[in-house]
Amino acid sequence: MKGDKIIIIGAGLSGTLLAITMAQRGYKVAVYERRDDMRKVSMSAGRSINLALSPRGMWGLDLADIKNEVLQQCIPMPGRMIHPRGQQAFFQAYSGREGEAINSVSRGGLNIALLNKAEMFENIDLHFNHACTGVQMDKGIAYFKHEKSGTAIEVKGDIIIGTDGSGSALRKSMLERTADLLFNYSQQFLSHGYKELSIKPTDNGDFRLDKNALHIWPRGSFMIIALPNLDGSFTVTMFHPYEGEYGFNHMNTPEKVQSFFNTFYPELIPYMPDYVDEYFTNPTGNLGTIKCYPWQAYGKTLLMGDAAHAIVPFYGQGMNASFEDVRVFNEIIDKTGDDWPQVFDAFQKSRAHNTNAIADLAIDNFYEMRDRVDDADFMMKRKIETDLEFSYPDYYSKYSLVTFRADVPYSRAMNQGRAQDDLLLSWCKEGKTTPAKEEMYRQLMDLAKRFEHEY
Amino acid sequence: MKGDKIIIIGAGLSGTLLAITMAQRGYKVAVYERRDDMRKVSMSAGRSINLALSPRGMWGLDLADIKNEVLQQCIPMPGRMIHPRGQQAFFQAYSGREGEAINSVSRGGLNIALLNKAEMFENIDLHFNHACTGVQMDKGIAYFKHEKSGTAIEVKGDIIIGTDGSGSALRKSMLERTADLLFNYSQQFLSHGYKELSIKPTDNGDFRLDKNALHIWPRGSFMIIALPNLDGSFTVTMFHPYEGEYGFNHMNTPEKVQSFFNTFYPELIPYMPDYVDEYFTNPTGNLGTIKCYPWQAYGKTLLMGDAAHAIVPFYGQGMNASFEDVRVFNEIIDKTGDDWPQVFDAFQKSRAHNTNAIADLAIDNFYEMRDRVDDADFMMKRKIETDLEFSYPDYYSKYSLVTFRADVPYSRAMNQGRAQDDLLLSWCKEGKTTPAKEEMYRQLMDLAKRFEHEY
Repeated sequence: MKGDKIIIIGAGLSGTLLAITMAQRGYKVAVYERRDDMRKVSMSAGRSINLALSPRGMWGLDLADIKNEVLQQCIPMPGRMIHPRGQQAFFQAYSGREGEAINSVSRGGLNIALLNKAEMFENIDLHFNHACTGVQMDKGIAYFKHEKSGTAIEVKGDIIIGTDGSGSALRKSMLERTADLLFNYSQQFLSHGYKELSIKPTDNGDFRLDKNALHIWPRGSFMIIALPNLDGSFTVTMFHPYEGEYGFNHMNTPEKVQSFFNTFYPELIPYMPDYVDEYFTNPTGNLGTIKCYPWQAYGKTLLMGDAAHAIVPFYGQGMNASFEDVRVFNEIIDKTGDDWPQVFDAFQKSRAHNTNAIADLAIDNFYEMRDRVDDADFMMKRKIETDLEFSYPDYYSKYSLVTFRADVPYSRAMNQGRAQDDLLLSWCKEGKTTPAKEEMYRQLMDLAKRFEHEY
Repeated sequence: MKGDKIIIIGAGLSGTLLAITMAQRGYKVAVYERRDDMRKVSMSAGRSINLALSPRGMWGLDLADIKNEVLQQCIPMPGRMIHPRGQQAFFQAYSGREGEAINSVSRGGLNIALLNKAEMFENIDLHFNHACTGVQMDKGIAYFKHEKSGTAIEVKGDIIIGTDGSGSALRKSMLERTADLLFNYSQQFLSHGYKELSIKPTDNGDFRLDKNALHIWPRGSFMIIALPNLDGSFTVTMFHPYEGEYGFNHMNTPEKVQSFFNTFYPELIPYMPDYVDEYFTNPTGNLGTIKCYPWQAYGKTLLMGDAAHAIVPFYGQGMNASFEDVRVFNEIIDKTGDDWPQVFDAFQKSRAHNTNAIADLAIDNFYEMRDRVDDADFMMKRKIETDLEFSYPDYYSKYSLVTFRADVPYSRAMNQGRAQDDLLLSWCKEGKTTPAKEEMYRQLMDLAKRFEHEY
């Protein structure tokens, strides 16, 4: 109902976008964020500084009417630059169509743009330094503690939406009410973690590597990637197992780290003068997948974004999936009005299988990026796909379905994409001659038709 | 090390058995139990009053040297008595071998026998009414609150083992330390719950139904089962969905319950004079599966039993799996000594894939019991298997591998059993003539060989 009070827990990317769209509809929105206002204090370094923004995310952001501002912050990456060990780097386009690219964007910059926009609404109140300590879900009451004063407050809303990320306080409240809610929950970690380093710009402020690419240095059981920043630097992320000789738990002296980089990444050392310090200063992050269901409780509270579906970063879709949540949520209200219990139920039913799909795809992509991007069959398949997309722009590879077809739900993208991959790989088997391009296209398009009605 | 202090959280079935075996080895054992001493106060009615004890559980119990006492409490059930709707009941043996049966046993009686035995050890201290409020795992400190006085205490042990059931406080402490432990966790609920009722003995104290069977009234999307008790009664369990016309959430008036029983279970009404009262008095329980990994933290704390692997009851293996935990734990100490971090690691590595297997088998069996026990193909398969076991006692069906072959790990029982089922069902397809019995035996034994080395 117009005038309903909506409490949003978390003023991160999805929380602020959601707040804006709810304010546009005339609701009274109160956003509570644990951290300080990031426009006043600098964000802690070392944790996912930049992200890949692609059409699904862009479509969500469009609702907030800040596209132009966001585009100015974007560096397009039309493909991967692969750096095999001791060999020449080479470029793999993400798509055969002209102009399709993912965008490197600063998490902080994007969040600030959303906060600035949110602050323009009279009916949005932003409260920083408020850590959620729990939610009485059936009553619509959220409890917060002020991080500086220690004061405890309680706030009542008509509904409460938790966009409070992978450690969600609202989700913890649901977990505590497991018996009533039949709350299904799973958290699964990769045996790998990540750590961020940085490549500095040249003395002239130029990029040290091609700025229009997502760079990958695949090394089998571990890898490094790098994404460009507007200031000429690259944010570098090491993905390593915790255990084993080169595991984070064992590379624990400067000598070990130096010797490791000398062996595996000698070309990067000159670009990263502070890498040893950064290695020991920056935190090691876990790579976890969280799935749960239901996302709503008592028709009063709802999880959205990472709080509902934390995924690993290897498809570059975490933020995009969260922005898509906001778009779909708004579309449901457009279609059916704002009877909240019904909206929440329709939302979780339309989203959960799709976010489960991107969660699984992201794990698949970890193995692909680490082990397979420089493998012969895989490269042949990528080449065929890119050629096909170039000649037949209405053909979309699995990667393109996930990344560039915001109109195709993740679950369909996964099912169709996997079926396409099976067919493509059957043509790429050693010693086989691939069918003529037109024949491949025909077979792939026939296959795609089977998935048209998946939602 | 001899003299080490072991803290056990939970004096249920696996906690007391574990305490006894640790005391036998000379450790100082302190057991803390949330509830009152069940020998002094009666257990709350309405929740899994009796259980099926089978050889895996018996093997574990053997360590405590109370087998004879336990056997006196057992009612053997050599098979299922199936009661199809409106038709004559019929018997399905669990095995073709003479003497193989599962045993209906009182949870309370068995727990009391174990507590009495535990109390005979000078080096076991039992503390009732102590609810665990958390564990500082790296320090080996457990925190308890006395349920009556409210007093908080902390206890330090060389190791702490959590046998505190599916709601384990130790597991919650692990969940809170997710980031350090990379704690993988999943809880999944069936859309069905359960509720216990009872069939009274006759006025002469006799059983109203054949006491030597596990009775099943399959009705498609729901079912009722009954297990005999020593006093001539049966404990009846309804398994129903929460939703739908006959769901627990909707059968909420005496009229609806009566009309439901009149329609689906008219034959049971005369045996259960209090069923409507019991239906509304007794709680509805959830049916959840909990899997997690690791089971140990910091080489100081370990989960065991339901705390590590809660499963649904449909294979009658929950208690048996927990007693098997205790046996395997003791065998590891026998083999390698008591370097605890090593023992804990060996234990979780040998057990987790096996308890995952019985968790999955138990869910499979839910659908089998509810939908398929009175289905023609299934009955034919069961008949062939029982005939084979009778003629060739060294052949074991999937059910027999899980239930009667305590020497075969669950994971192998699952893999081998599923392969056998596929082969058997291929012979039972409509219109096909089954091979000669000797040929079936030969093929099945060949198949079984492939799984010999699975552990």
